[in-house]
This record gives sequence, structure tokens and C-alpha cells, in this order.
Amino acid sequence: MLSPTELQEILAFTTELARKAGALILEGSHAIQRAGAGSVGEKKNAVDLVTEYDVKVEELVHREIAGAYPHFEFIGEESYSAGTRPPLTDAPTFCVDPIDGTTNFVHGFPYACISLGLIDQRAPVLGVIYNPFLDHLYTGVRGAGAFLHTRTQPQPQRLPLAPAAARPLPSLGGALIAVEWGSDRTQGAISAKAQSFARLAGAPPHGVMAHSLRSVGSAALNFALVAQGALDAYWLVSIAARACRPWDVCAGIVIAQEAGGFVTGSKAVPHDGVVTEAILTGRRYLVIRGVAGTPEESSLDVQKRLAREFYDTVEDIPLDE
Amino acid sequence: MLSPTELQEILAFTTELARKAGALILEGSHAIQRAGAGSVGEKKNAVDLVTEYDVKVEELVHREIAGAYPHFEFIGEESYSAGTRPPLTDAPTFCVDPIDGTTNFVHGFPYACISLGLIDQRAPVLGVIYNPFLDHLYTGVRGAGAFLHTRTQPQPQRLPLAPAAARPLPSLGGALIAVEWGSDRTQGAISAKAQSFARLAGAPPHGVMAHSLRSVGSAALNFALVAQGALDAYWLVSIAARACRPWDVCAGIVIAQEAGGFVTGSKAVPHDGVVTEAILTGRRYLVIRGVAGTPEESSLDVQKRLAREFYDTVEDIPLDE
Repeated sequence: MLSPTELQEILAFTTELARKAGALILEGSHAIQRAGAGSVGEKKNAVDLVTEYDVKVEELVHREIAGAYPHFEFIGEESYSAGTRPPLTDAPTFCVDPIDGTTNFVHGFPYACISLGLIDQRAPVLGVIYNPFLDHLYTGVRGAGAFLHTRTQPQPQRLPLAPAAARPLPSLGGALIAVEWGSDRTQGAISAKAQSFARLAGAPPHGVMAHSLRSVGSAALNFALVAQGALDAYWLVSIAARACRPWDVCAGIVIAQEAGGFVTGSKAVPHDGVVTEAILTGRRYLVIRGVAGTPEESSLDVQKRLAREFYDTVEDIPLDE
Repeated sequence: MLSPTELQEILAFTTELARKAGALILEGSHAIQRAGAGSVGEKKNAVDLVTEYDVKVEELVHREIAGAYPHFEFIGEESYSAGTRPPLTDAPTFCVDPIDGTTNFVHGFPYACISLGLIDQRAPVLGVIYNPFLDHLYTGVRGAGAFLHTRTQPQPQRLPLAPAAARPLPSLGGALIAVEWGSDRTQGAISAKAQSFARLAGAPPHGVMAHSLRSVGSAALNFALVAQGALDAYWLVSIAARACRPWDVCAGIVIAQEAGGFVTGSKAVPHDGVVTEAILTGRRYLVIRGVAGTPEESSLDVQKRLAREFYDTVEDIPLDE
């Protein structure tokens, strides 16, 4: 198992790597806009640029990680899409999404990032998420807290930004919840999602009347916003087998948990806040921010109850295999 | 009619006012988080703080405007809710939303702003939108362009950030579209919205397969993001009679139009890009970013066609009176 000192060294390395990759993401997004994106498919050079920068960022990440930690394992989108899905081992394993929020990257909507996670002994232990559009860098290390670094603030700010102990969340009514439309646009998928969103937003008896729903289009940054306390919860379902995988959430899980957040998987798994390998690879995730407990109910018990309330509200969306 | 010189003087004044109000909004939001918001209704002092800062920002805006421009008219939420809805006159009229994105302000989600618009001869002529959470200040003056000012960039950046002439948008398929769940949560309203959103996101033949949908929760900032080019379109329907009114969109309309954007109203009005008084007060708005024309079709013709395509796709949502 990696020691706290080793984790801090890896954090320094991943933070620097995230900033380098972020600069490349920003440069790429600007080049794509100038070449006429927003309607990729129309302008050939814009499509080429998307691929070009995707590959550039990926290569940078691979090269730097292989140079610094040659004995660590690596999983990312390409590991899966090549059909050679590697089993998760006990070894330290980088779990990386070079560009999370690709649609935003293409359109210049300022929520794209690099997400660098590290798994050790089959559990997420370190995460760095960097959004170069807003210069927001989020870090988390198991047992050492989660932080937001911005160039305009001299010191990193501990997450959540306001103490979780001060902020109650008695029910989903009044919660600000992130949801995403995702990449599966078949009628079944879209209608199940639309109905679930309508139940979250709708007034009783048809819904739980969340304060509102937000969609910024990046799984990693939704986790970070929950950790920060700007969102109360985020629900992620990856219907398509090639859609969201551990690399989208690994870094975010550590950052959210270190900020007092609660992470669980599908409706069927035990909602006890322990992120098992089954949850990590399960393609359904629910994260709830750190909340104040009461004399009658601990923080964790509140979060567990909210997770049950959540799954009683939304549709159980089937996944493709 | 106000001269270009007068408009530039008013711009300097409103920009400074926006920054002062923004600082107060940021201070208020932090105080509310620390007092336990996120679940307003639970902690009495958090609710009090929301009202307190709402009033503080409003008073600041009224006081400064009355001091600098005592002969200008003023319309805002309070003008309407007092039941004394003033008719729009030919006189210069400030049209202000002191805090746009109140839910975000309460939760600390970084999309709340002050929106300062000016109407002259019944048409929007000047807009300033300032989001203090991200330090993004957007300005627009009729005939003088639209700009984004951030402290990290030495010079204001002209909008759109990438030249509109380079960026085609042949159809809504591939567009990044902002929609919001709004404050009317009755089943009729929510289900009409959910069905409309599902048609925008869904694959043909049930939908137009937009690239994706985004919801950040601020009407003014959605207009600004369309002006910037980060969003391709934004659709706003204020179902409840007390919900969105001209002050939510006045500043945004100028900024979007000066960036080449196209603004129209409900399905029933002519989609010719002219913002009439009926559109300004009509509670339904559609804004489309500046797009490249082709030899066969001018930019304006593309935007008009997209507006028709949009209204053929979504439900015609009835408004409360």
C-alpha cells in the first residue's frame, strides 16, 4: 500500500501534469473554435483538430506517467475500447480521462477538464481534476483532505468551502442536483431520463421538488462541485457500454469523499458509503455532499437516507451490455 | 435618443456599479453558506441572510442609479410585484435584476450575477452582466460591440470569442442548447418542459439530436454564454406570471445582439431578429448565436430557419396570467 509520503509525491507530480495537460486542452479548444466547430461535421479541419488534441493530451499523459511511474498500471478509455479490458489488480493504477467533457471542449463551454485518479489496493486514493477554462484545480488524497486551488486565491481552499457541519440537507426537496443527458439518445434512454428529471424537479405528489437541476456536462467537474458544496448531489448513469467508466469518476470520488461526501452505486448495491470495486466499475453513481447530522441522525445516516430517497424517486435505467 | 457618447458614459457608470454589487453578492453568498444554506427553510439565519443581501444589493443599485441618473425611469421585479406595472415609455429606462440566479446565489453554485440593462426609445441599448463568482463581466452597447472582461486577461475580449463568420450551425443537430427547469413545478409545466427537452436531445425521428443540453440556472448568464459562443442557443419560457420579465433578459439581449446573436420571442411572433416591445415583455425568448452564412443563405436567414426549426421541435408551453 502506498504511504502518505508517497501519495504526496504523486500528488505533486499529477498536479503539474494536470496543469500541462490543461494548457493543451485550452489551446486545443480555442483552435477548434477558430476553425469553425460548434457544428463538427461541417468543417473538416475542426474535426481533425478535435482528434489531434485528444491524441496530444493522451500522449502527454501516457509519456509523463510512464516516465515517472513505469511500474504503475494504467487504465483509460483506450484500455477498454481496445477490447482488452484489464482486470483491476492490487497494484497502484492510474485511472485517467485526458479530456472529460468533450462536448464542452469542442464548443468552448467552460466545463472541460483533465481527470487524473489513482487506485491502490482496488480503492481510489488520489484525485486531481483541472479545468483550465476557469483555472479551477481540485485535489484530494485519502486521509489528507480535498482542496480547490485557483490563481486568484493565494492559498488552496479546503473543501467543502463552507463547513459541512453547518449545512443541513434534510431531504431532496430543496437540493440542487446535477444530472446529465448523456450520449445515449435512443428514445428509451432519453424518455427514462426525462421522466426521472421531471420527478426530481416536480412538485409533490409527482415529484420531490428539488430546488433545481443543473447540467454542466462534465462528470468529473460535477463530482468536484459536489465536493465544493455548490451542488448537493450528482447522479450519473452510463447507459452505453462505452460511455462512462471508472476514469470519469475515480479522481472525483476521492475529492468528494475527502470533502465529507458520500458515494454509492446503483439502486441495488448497499448504500453504506464504501466504494467497492463493483461500484467503481458499475457505471451508475450517486454522490451526495457532506451534510450536518443531528442529535438523532448522524451525517452518514442522513446521506444513506437521501440515497434511498433518491433511488425511490428516479427510474431504474437499464444499461446496455 | 441617447447619443453614443452618453451611452459610453452610462457604460462606465454601470460597469462600476456592477462590480460593487457583485462584491456584495459574493459576500452574501459566502455568508449564507456559512450560516447553513443549501437547505433554506431549515436554518433561520440563512433565510434571513438571503433576504438581507437581496435588499442590500437592490438598495445599492437604486441609490446609485437615482444619484447618477435621477430622470431615468426604472423597472425591476419590485415595480411589477407592487402591482403598479409601469407602461414602457420612450424615456431612458434602467431594467435591472439585482441578483439573477437566486438559487445559485443561495447554494454557492458559481452562476449568479447582477444584470443591468438600459432601454431607450423602447429598445434595449446597453447591457452589463457581472458574475462575481467567476469574475466574468460582460458588456454590450448598441452599435459598439460586446465584450468579456476578466481580471486574468489584460484586455477585454470581443464577443464572440471566435469569429462568428468561421462557425457554421447548419441545424439544431449538433447544437449545444441551454434550457432551464424554472420555478413553476406543477405537473403540466414540468412535463411539457421534460418532453420538449427530450425532443431536443433525442435522436431522430423522435428528436433533433442536439449535441447536448446545459442548465446553469441564470437567464442573464445564458444570454452571455450564447454571446460568447460557448452555447449555440438558449430557450427561456417564464410560465409563472411573476417569473422572468424584461429585467432578466434586457442586458443579455444587447450583449447577444452585439455579438451577432439573434433574439426572438414566442412561436407566434415574426422571427426576424427585431426585438419589439411585445417580445421584450413576452416572457418567451429564444436566442441563437452568430453563425456563418453561406453563398446560398445569409447568417440572418440561417438564424431565422433555426428559430423555426426550434419551435417546430418543442412544445408550445402555455403561460399563466
